[in-house]
Amino acid sequence: MDLPPLLLDRADERPLAAQLADALRAAAAGGAFRAGDRLPSTRALATTLGVSRTVTAAAYDQLLAEGWAAGRRGSGTFVVGTPPGTRAALRPPVPSRPVSRPGIDLRAGTPCVEVLDGAAWRRAWRAAADVPPDAEPEPVGLPAFRSAVVEHLLRHRGLPAEPDHVLATGGSTGAIAELARTLPAGARVAVEEPGYQRAVAALRAAGLVTVPVPVDGAGMVVDALPRGLAAVYGTPAHQYPLGARLSASRRVALVDRARAEGFLVIEDDYDGELRYDVAPLPLLAALGPDVVAHLGTASKLLTPTLGAGWLVAPPAVRGAVLDLRDRTGSRPARAGQRVFAALAAHGDLARHLRRLRRELGDRRAAVTTAVTAAGHAVIGDAAGAHVVVPLPNAVTERAVVVAAAERGVGLDGLARHHGGEPVVHGILLGYAGQSRRDLDRALPVVREVLAAVPSEGPA
Amino acid sequence: MDLPPLLLDRADERPLAAQLADALRAAAAGGAFRAGDRLPSTRALATTLGVSRTVTAAAYDQLLAEGWAAGRRGSGTFVVGTPPGTRAALRPPVPSRPVSRPGIDLRAGTPCVEVLDGAAWRRAWRAAADVPPDAEPEPVGLPAFRSAVVEHLLRHRGLPAEPDHVLATGGSTGAIAELARTLPAGARVAVEEPGYQRAVAALRAAGLVTVPVPVDGAGMVVDALPRGLAAVYGTPAHQYPLGARLSASRRVALVDRARAEGFLVIEDDYDGELRYDVAPLPLLAALGPDVVAHLGTASKLLTPTLGAGWLVAPPAVRGAVLDLRDRTGSRPARAGQRVFAALAAHGDLARHLRRLRRELGDRRAAVTTAVTAAGHAVIGDAAGAHVVVPLPNAVTERAVVVAAAERGVGLDGLARHHGGEPVVHGILLGYAGQSRRDLDRALPVVREVLAAVPSEGPA
Repeated sequence: MDLPPLLLDRADERPLAAQLADALRAAAAGGAFRAGDRLPSTRALATTLGVSRTVTAAAYDQLLAEGWAAGRRGSGTFVVGTPPGTRAALRPPVPSRPVSRPGIDLRAGTPCVEVLDGAAWRRAWRAAADVPPDAEPEPVGLPAFRSAVVEHLLRHRGLPAEPDHVLATGGSTGAIAELARTLPAGARVAVEEPGYQRAVAALRAAGLVTVPVPVDGAGMVVDALPRGLAAVYGTPAHQYPLGARLSASRRVALVDRARAEGFLVIEDDYDGELRYDVAPLPLLAALGPDVVAHLGTASKLLTPTLGAGWLVAPPAVRGAVLDLRDRTGSRPARAGQRVFAALAAHGDLARHLRRLRRELGDRRAAVTTAVTAAGHAVIGDAAGAHVVVPLPNAVTERAVVVAAAERGVGLDGLARHHGGEPVVHGILLGYAGQSRRDLDRALPVVREVLAAVPSEGPA
Repeated sequence: MDLPPLLLDRADERPLAAQLADALRAAAAGGAFRAGDRLPSTRALATTLGVSRTVTAAAYDQLLAEGWAAGRRGSGTFVVGTPPGTRAALRPPVPSRPVSRPGIDLRAGTPCVEVLDGAAWRRAWRAAADVPPDAEPEPVGLPAFRSAVVEHLLRHRGLPAEPDHVLATGGSTGAIAELARTLPAGARVAVEEPGYQRAVAALRAAGLVTVPVPVDGAGMVVDALPRGLAAVYGTPAHQYPLGARLSASRRVALVDRARAEGFLVIEDDYDGELRYDVAPLPLLAALGPDVVAHLGTASKLLTPTLGAGWLVAPPAVRGAVLDLRDRTGSRPARAGQRVFAALAAHGDLARHLRRLRRELGDRRAAVTTAVTAAGHAVIGDAAGAHVVVPLPNAVTERAVVVAAAERGVGLDGLARHHGGEPVVHGILLGYAGQSRRDLDRALPVVREVLAAVPSEGPA
C-alpha cells in the first residue's frame, strides 16, 4: 500500500501525533485506504515523514483507540473501517455512560501545579524583578540559585554539597545532552530497559551508543552491566517507569564498578523528593561524589515554566561542561533560576514540598485503591507521581489503553518506555498532572477497564 | 620544558582563564619556569588541560599584559621574568597616571543594561507572575512570546512572519546547536573568517565540519563558498567582528545558491536592530524564506537574564528542530519568554529600543572621535555595539592590547576571532557593556595607546 502525502505542520500548536492521526483519517476518508489494508510500521512511517517513532506510535494508538484500525501497533496494524470524512465526526465515540468527559490525561510526567500557592508564586516573581538585569553571562548559574539548590539537596535529599559543586542547568534532559557531549563520540552508555526514552534519545543525539540493561524489583541489574562503558544512566531513587529503588547493595556495587572501570554514573533524581512511606537510601552522589553526576530539576517539583535544574558532579565533569558552555556560548537561562531562588529564600519551596507530598500521597492511595478494587496490583515504591499496573501481555496492555481512551481517559502503556521489544507489560497511571477533581472522575473508568482484563498475578 | 600540574577548579566563580593565569604565575613563583623558558603553545596547553584554546589564549594575554612573558601568543611565548609569589602582588602595574581605574572592560558582546528602565523591568516581571505556572511542556514556545517576536520582527526588522513560523529558542548559540543536530554528522558548514567563534564551536561540537570563508567590506565573500555545503552560517546584518553589511547583490547570490545547491542559510541577526545612520537591507529570511533559518536574541537587546531568542525557518527545518526537542525532551525555558512578552505588550520593548539606539549611537560617535583623534580609523557600518580599529600587523595589535591592559582597560584583539591564523589585525572596542561613565574614562586611554602605534592607513 502506498501512502498519499501526509502534511504535518511542525509549528502547528497541536501535537504532531494528533496532526498525523488527522492526516491518516483524512487520507482514509479520501479513499486512500480500504478495510483490510495494512498500515506501514511505525518505524517505517517515522522514517518516511522524518518524525520520531514516538509520534507515529501515538498516532496509531489514537486510531486503534478510535476503532478504525486493529492489531498490533508495530508492523501489524490493519485498517478495519473507514472513518467518516469530517474531523468533528472522528472524535472518540461517546462513552457508554457519562462517567467521565473526554480528555482526562492520566499519563505520567506532568507536575502537580494545582497545589502551588498562587501568592507564593507571585511573591517569588516580584522578588526576582527587584534584581536588575544582568549584563554578563553566568555559565555556572546564579549564586543565589546555587545556594538554594545546596540547601534543598541537604534538607530533602541528604546530600551535602558546596555551592561551588553545583552547576545550574536548563533541566535534566538538557543536562544529559551536555554531559553526553563531554564524552567521546561513539562511547557506550548503559541505560535502563524499560527506561526514560527521552534521556536515551538525548544520549544518542549526541553521538553516543546506548546499551540497554534490565531492571527488576531492586532497580537496575548492576551485575548485567557490560564492560567498556563510558557512562551509566539511571534513575536510582525511583526507577522510571517501573518505580523500584536501586537497592543499597547495588548502589555500592555500581559505585565500586564506576571507580574500578572508570565510567561516569549519571544519577537522574527526577522525583526523588517525593516519597510517602518509604525511607530514602543514600544518593549515589553521596556514596561516590568522585564518579557520580547527580541531576535534579524544578520541572517535576514545581513547573517546567522555570526551565531550571541542577548538576552536582566531580570537578573534572563540571569543568568539561563549563568548557563546553564557554566554547559554544550556551548557558542555562537565569530568569527561572531567580524565581526558584526567591521561592526558596521565602520558605515557600519547603512549604510547597510538604503540600505536594501530602497531596500526591493521598492521590497515590486513591489510585491504588481503585486498582486493587479491580483485582490488580501496583508495583514500585510508594513514591513519585505515577504507579505501574503490570498486565500479563501486550494484547491486554493495548486493550486497557484502548478501552480507557474510548471512555475519555488517556493511559500510557509500558510499551513506549522500552527502547526495543517490550519485555514488561502494563500501564502507567500518572496522578499529578490533572486536577484532583478530574482524577477522581477518571478512577472509576480505570477500575472498570482493569476489572475487565486478567491481572498479572499476585502482587 | 615540562609543565607542573596546573589545578583549575571548574566551578570556581572566576573565569578559567584567570585561574589558569594564577596557576601559571604560582608555578613560576614556585620555580617551575625561569626567564628564557618557552611556554607551550596555547593549543598544546589547551589539549593538556582539557580546556578550550580561548581559555589558554586569554591566560597568556594576561601574562603578556603583566609583562612576565613576551613574544607571540601562539607558539612563541617566552618567560622574561618571574612574578612575585603572592597573588596580590601580581596585579597589573599601577597606571603611570590616574586616568583610569583598573578593570574597565571594552570587550564586545555584553548588552547595555544601563538604559533598561527599572520600572518597565519590574512591571514586566509582575505581569509574568500573574500567569499561573505551566504543567505541560511547550516545545514551540509561549504563544504570547511568539506573537511579540512577530511584531518585533515586522516593526524592527521588516520581516513579515506568522506566529506559527516562529520557534522560541534559548538564545542564538543554543539554536545553532539545535540546527546543527538536524544536519547529518560530518556535514560541511561554511563560516565567516574572521567570525563568531562560539557559533563555530557550537557547530563543531555537534559533529559538523566547518569551512572558513573570507569576508571583506561587503561581508561574506559568497563567490568563495565551496560546493557541497549542508549549511552556511553568517552575520549578514553586521558581520561579526568586522562590521560590514552583506551587500544586496551578495544576498541575492547567496539565496540563489542555497536554492540551487540545497543548503540551509543560518542568518544570525545578533544585533540587527542596532543601526544608527545606515539603512537596513532586506533580511535573508525575507529574500529566501524557503532556505533561510533566521536567528534573533534578547540577550544583546535587553539582557541575557531572559535566556530567550527566536528562530524563523522553513517548515521542514522547524519540524526537524521540534522533532529533536520532542525526542530528547529539551525545551526553551519559558520564564524569560514571559518577561519578554510582557515588555513587548506594554510598549516598553519599543521604548527601550529607541533609548538603546540613541545611547549607543552617541557612544559610537564618542568612540569614533577618540579613535580618529589618535590618527586611526574605524571600519564597519555605523551599527551594533562595537567598532573595529584595523592595525598593520599582529605585533601592533598585541602591543595595543597590552598597553591598554597596563592602563586598566580591557581590549579585544581580532586574533581570537579567527579560527585559523589571523588574516586581519586590529582591535575591537565594545561600547555597550560598561557604564557611560566608565566608557568616558576609558576613551582617553584608548586614544593614547592608539596614538603610539602606526595606523593601518587611510580609512
